[in-house]
Amino acid sequence: MAKKIIGIDLGGTSVKFAILTQEGDIQEKWSIKTNILDEGSHIVPDIIASIQHRLELLNLTSEDFLGIGMGSPGAVDRFEGTVIGAYNLNWKTLQPIKKDIESALGIPFFIDNDANVAALGERWKGAGENQPDVVFMTLGTGVGGGIVAEGKLLHGAGGVAGELGHITVDFDRPFDCTCGKKGCLETVASATGIVNLTRRYADEYAGDATLKRLIDDGEEVTAKTVFDLAKDGDELALIVYRHFSQYLGIACANIASVLNPANIVIGGGVSAAGQFLLDGVQKVFDENTFPQVRTSTQLVLANLGNDAGVIGAASLVLQ
Amino acid sequence: MAKKIIGIDLGGTSVKFAILTQEGDIQEKWSIKTNILDEGSHIVPDIIASIQHRLELLNLTSEDFLGIGMGSPGAVDRFEGTVIGAYNLNWKTLQPIKKDIESALGIPFFIDNDANVAALGERWKGAGENQPDVVFMTLGTGVGGGIVAEGKLLHGAGGVAGELGHITVDFDRPFDCTCGKKGCLETVASATGIVNLTRRYADEYAGDATLKRLIDDGEEVTAKTVFDLAKDGDELALIVYRHFSQYLGIACANIASVLNPANIVIGGGVSAAGQFLLDGVQKVFDENTFPQVRTSTQLVLANLGNDAGVIGAASLVLQ
Repeated sequence: MAKKIIGIDLGGTSVKFAILTQEGDIQEKWSIKTNILDEGSHIVPDIIASIQHRLELLNLTSEDFLGIGMGSPGAVDRFEGTVIGAYNLNWKTLQPIKKDIESALGIPFFIDNDANVAALGERWKGAGENQPDVVFMTLGTGVGGGIVAEGKLLHGAGGVAGELGHITVDFDRPFDCTCGKKGCLETVASATGIVNLTRRYADEYAGDATLKRLIDDGEEVTAKTVFDLAKDGDELALIVYRHFSQYLGIACANIASVLNPANIVIGGGVSAAGQFLLDGVQKVFDENTFPQVRTSTQLVLANLGNDAGVIGAASLVLQ
Repeated sequence: MAKKIIGIDLGGTSVKFAILTQEGDIQEKWSIKTNILDEGSHIVPDIIASIQHRLELLNLTSEDFLGIGMGSPGAVDRFEGTVIGAYNLNWKTLQPIKKDIESALGIPFFIDNDANVAALGERWKGAGENQPDVVFMTLGTGVGGGIVAEGKLLHGAGGVAGELGHITVDFDRPFDCTCGKKGCLETVASATGIVNLTRRYADEYAGDATLKRLIDDGEEVTAKTVFDLAKDGDELALIVYRHFSQYLGIACANIASVLNPANIVIGGGVSAAGQFLLDGVQKVFDENTFPQVRTSTQLVLANLGNDAGVIGAASLVLQ
């Protein structure tokens, strides 16, 4: 029987696991809560115990597996198989994950950062259609990404290729970014960025849009609130939507002018706004790409949802 | 004896040839004039005759060569070995170059576009220091480029990866670009672009800078004029230099935020301005890159000059 692969998507809230075929089909899925207490020292032992337990249940042994792949937050050393500085896991010191997992389970282990792994997943089995050139952009609390070019995941000289959130897009009135510079895509196109834009334009807006009233009343306003109101034609929400589309459209256009990928796959929580989000971005993209790029690079929504992580993690084993 | 390689750099004025070792060292160099008469129909026969003549002179046969690599303007089909639409060669119809050269010389033939080939050359033996991740940008009449990532030359879904001249960088007062859109890097950072900027700022400038007098007197002003005057402290030339640096610096910063290459190598005629050009761009680059990119991506000047083409062309044989 062909050997299987284990994919692990390690996040600050939960650890997702899957057993997959070498074709990337999920046969089994489960998850556990991430225990970040005691400087995250329980995380790796919990992962090992959960896999051991699952293999027993399924009557499988290490011999049945080609390898384990994992996506992790923080600074990943994919050669050494270590992670450091994953603050949402409380990992402040170097974690020798590969060594611990391989010695406990006897299965070869591979690791990369979570955005890269999600990019691999969407490229392999999702909206990337297994093309050799795919860019994945995730719009969540921040903006992250991963790039596959000529079939290879890019890492860059300093390990930060595909960190698309720090492309400079706002020159006129740049917000400060957590990275220390100004005008980053993340400051205007993440969930937080949409709230930044909403506050900026609400201050200047004198009409009676619903979004304005929510802000003035101190209600919680999220990216979802803004997109839902924009879809309904709320005047202020549409102003925010147009600026968001402009910034994200320029970023996508310039990425495409550099890489000319088959697909730019947009995922993450903000992308739940769906086709409406894509339509605004596409318009700006079309205005800012030259014909050969415009006709060969497609903007698409991610379609694997939460499975992108475990599928992409599994694909690390096959690289 | 180890087999050798022939590298060919086909341009609108001359065809450059070299015989190289597999280590990329040039052993022999020569060139012929490009005869673009009769729809460029003499070009390939001239290339074949020149190689045959040179091999006779050197007492070499096709058996002594691993292959021939060539860089060409126009739209190159690297799989079929054809070129179409190279207007500076008068090639309006499909040119079956690989077929013609292989059947005449009996040596395997490889081809890619000229900017990609120059990128390969600078990466292999020049300022790219043979790093796995190198971006090459050429500032000439236009702005072109080529990208090597994880050791592979990128082509993209539509064959236009690395066409860096059409990144949008000018949002406030964009010039029209020949590509049909506005605000492209090429409109402000090529030799032509620097003249565009000079005319714009000369119109608004009321002082008595030398550059202003040259423009008002209808003298020919080139990128070299502008950089030379800027180095001497000419007030208008410095205004142009600062805007040029801003646009090119933003483009380099955003390329680095996407790809995080070890080097961005700047070449082409405009780069003759040297360290002075680099200093202006570096300042803007540093302001617009986050720390991990800023410390791992270097801006450097190309250092192979005219040899980049033949060296990169030769490297196609080894890919």
